[in-house]
Amino acid sequence: MRSVNIGICGLGTVGAGVFNVLGRNSNSINSRANCEIGVTQVGARRDNPGCDTSGTDVSRDIFDVAKNPEIDIVVELIGGTTVALDLVMTALQHGKHVVTANKALIAAHGTEIFAEAESRNLIVAFEAAVAGGIPIIKALREGLSANRINWLAGIINGTTNFILSEMDSKGRDFADVLNEAQEKGYAEADPTFDVEGIDAAHKLVIMASLAFAMPLSLDGIFTDGITKLEPQDVSYARELGYAIKHLGIARQTPEGVELRVHPTLVPEKCLIAGVNDVSNAVMVNADAVGTTLFYGPGAGSEPTASSVIADIIDVARTMASSPDSWVPALGCASSALQEQKIMDIQDIETSFYIRFSALDQAGVLSNVTKIMGDAGISIEAIIQKEQPAGEEYVNVIILTNVTKEKFLDEAVTYIEQLETVRGSVNFIRVEHLDQ
Amino acid sequence: MRSVNIGICGLGTVGAGVFNVLGRNSNSINSRANCEIGVTQVGARRDNPGCDTSGTDVSRDIFDVAKNPEIDIVVELIGGTTVALDLVMTALQHGKHVVTANKALIAAHGTEIFAEAESRNLIVAFEAAVAGGIPIIKALREGLSANRINWLAGIINGTTNFILSEMDSKGRDFADVLNEAQEKGYAEADPTFDVEGIDAAHKLVIMASLAFAMPLSLDGIFTDGITKLEPQDVSYARELGYAIKHLGIARQTPEGVELRVHPTLVPEKCLIAGVNDVSNAVMVNADAVGTTLFYGPGAGSEPTASSVIADIIDVARTMASSPDSWVPALGCASSALQEQKIMDIQDIETSFYIRFSALDQAGVLSNVTKIMGDAGISIEAIIQKEQPAGEEYVNVIILTNVTKEKFLDEAVTYIEQLETVRGSVNFIRVEHLDQ
Repeated sequence: MRSVNIGICGLGTVGAGVFNVLGRNSNSINSRANCEIGVTQVGARRDNPGCDTSGTDVSRDIFDVAKNPEIDIVVELIGGTTVALDLVMTALQHGKHVVTANKALIAAHGTEIFAEAESRNLIVAFEAAVAGGIPIIKALREGLSANRINWLAGIINGTTNFILSEMDSKGRDFADVLNEAQEKGYAEADPTFDVEGIDAAHKLVIMASLAFAMPLSLDGIFTDGITKLEPQDVSYARELGYAIKHLGIARQTPEGVELRVHPTLVPEKCLIAGVNDVSNAVMVNADAVGTTLFYGPGAGSEPTASSVIADIIDVARTMASSPDSWVPALGCASSALQEQKIMDIQDIETSFYIRFSALDQAGVLSNVTKIMGDAGISIEAIIQKEQPAGEEYVNVIILTNVTKEKFLDEAVTYIEQLETVRGSVNFIRVEHLDQ
Repeated sequence: MRSVNIGICGLGTVGAGVFNVLGRNSNSINSRANCEIGVTQVGARRDNPGCDTSGTDVSRDIFDVAKNPEIDIVVELIGGTTVALDLVMTALQHGKHVVTANKALIAAHGTEIFAEAESRNLIVAFEAAVAGGIPIIKALREGLSANRINWLAGIINGTTNFILSEMDSKGRDFADVLNEAQEKGYAEADPTFDVEGIDAAHKLVIMASLAFAMPLSLDGIFTDGITKLEPQDVSYARELGYAIKHLGIARQTPEGVELRVHPTLVPEKCLIAGVNDVSNAVMVNADAVGTTLFYGPGAGSEPTASSVIADIIDVARTMASSPDSWVPALGCASSALQEQKIMDIQDIETSFYIRFSALDQAGVLSNVTKIMGDAGISIEAIIQKEQPAGEEYVNVIILTNVTKEKFLDEAVTYIEQLETVRGSVNFIRVEHLDQ
């Protein structure tokens, strides 16, 4: 049996998972790869107590691995976009195939990495970069390859989904849950990447490139985080039959591609509304198949290792065959990728949930509905919440039908100018995900 | 660009879908396949008004297609296991790769078909045989290839799921919904295959072979249909926080493999409980990744075509490369497949929902709980329903903890012998699907 030699760079949570699962399931992995996969070298600044590397060559310099002439596949699990980029390019320049779990690296530098790999007849695989253990890259690139994809919408950050699930099920507020998530290790000390949607944006860009055959680029993507979400909105949404999820949405429209990450009301009856805690899920709507959904753990040591090793198996099985028979990194030849206009958030059409505080007196709602009507926005539901005793102001909740965001913005400006309205008008986008 | 010639056998619902989607999305399909895919010939006894084959060579004899020297890939969409087997073997003997959507054929004759293909260095692909448009074969065979799979559980028959969804949401009875399903074309005139779980059994066997690396065989699989399900059980299950789904379940245990299709109570909070109407979904639990779920349309013209064409693209892209680099039909070399003992349903451990009718008098429940205790079965919940006015008997509902089915059977026999119990004791298996 042919041997294929792996070098693992990075021995953190994911690196240890890859090392351990490769050892534990080696028989079935070799059988599926049709070759003998061995870890020839590990590159890591320090040991990981969760992982027994005795008997394996461990170097403190990851670049030793990238240059090791015995190694066929370099597995990049160090994260970041500076040293990781250098490492991946060095590995390719030394003739190694690359498997990575690094979403930021692929989203920001995928184009140059894939070009380098293509020019050298090498494979770069990145299943673990999106949605952890869910094989969504393979689904988009191969499983649904017959289709024109219309849109996809995903819960692709476990931290924010955990926070939203807790806010929803227990009425807790954002800061409180974030603290707990940080204590549990679900959230980083600096949670910005997660809670502001930057991590989700990286994953969304990768999925959108695969779905719409366009080059990777972070330009133009709209991101809004969950830091300003209030428990009352989560609870009003439930009353109206919706859950609030932090979705990454990519949609092909005749005017261009929508790329946006933001809190979103989704109908409770929609399967993705039931995806809670740190789980991830991606819905894909396409012309032939209709709507599919892929659910699973979006992070963690062995779930992520599952995707990394699936890539290793694919690369090991096919690396000796003609590059013509390989699945290209983004599904089609890089020459076939086409730039598309990324739509401005102001031009995107969706429905809205609106909340504001208004004096509980005659005429207020008619002023508001007139403003909405003048902006061409039709109203699906309007609810005035009972005010607490002694309180002059009530919360008004409006669900709109589909409209362009710029018309909604215009209406919001006018509503905020009403004397009977106090403070600012909060709005959250609503997606029905039904076609 | 290299050309790959397709022959489509069968121009029914799925055949027309394949023909139409291949035409509509030909640019992106060719780009993803890295070759030019053309339909060289169609074999069909009659035309399909949903499909314009003018300009395509149509033969009334499907065997013309299987023997056509210009054709590279034969797509078998005629269904059945007699002529279809002959057709597929003929195609292989004439050097053609085969793509099929035929679950009965693969489940019953997969072993000989794959052996013939392997001996001739040809590919047989069958993504569309299980769960229509959901790329579950690819997920089991490639996406989750790093894992030891512990169990899988799927809603893999749209007809029964439609019937159960209607019984659940509208309180209708089985016969009533079946009639409607037949009128709508969701159910066959002879619905036995669907409602008795035979179709689901075919799909389950295919998934189990992939999951547990064992040869295809229908021997020993337990099937129970939905024909005896009563609306009151669906409604009692809801009261207890469960939905009733017709699941195909395959589980690796130290004693052997469980293979069973039956109505099952699943907790409402479980994602699969929210899969309704004709949709399908498969949960997979594996050692590294944990639990994943794959959801989508389980049947229909273009959803099934989506999977057929994904296979065509894979075959077209890789057929010129070395067979060593192909993914074997069942994930590993046929020589690596190992027979496993299929467990008798009596030896399977699960929880149970039990319903029976008992006199509303003191001592009845204590007799029943004593019987359960003597059989070593612990009770999770016991509910006595209010009887209608003038009615001496009440419905008693019991939820048990996990026990072997043979102990439950024993207890049921004793309960039925109680003088205070009227008629037979009904039971439905319960799965928590949480580990």
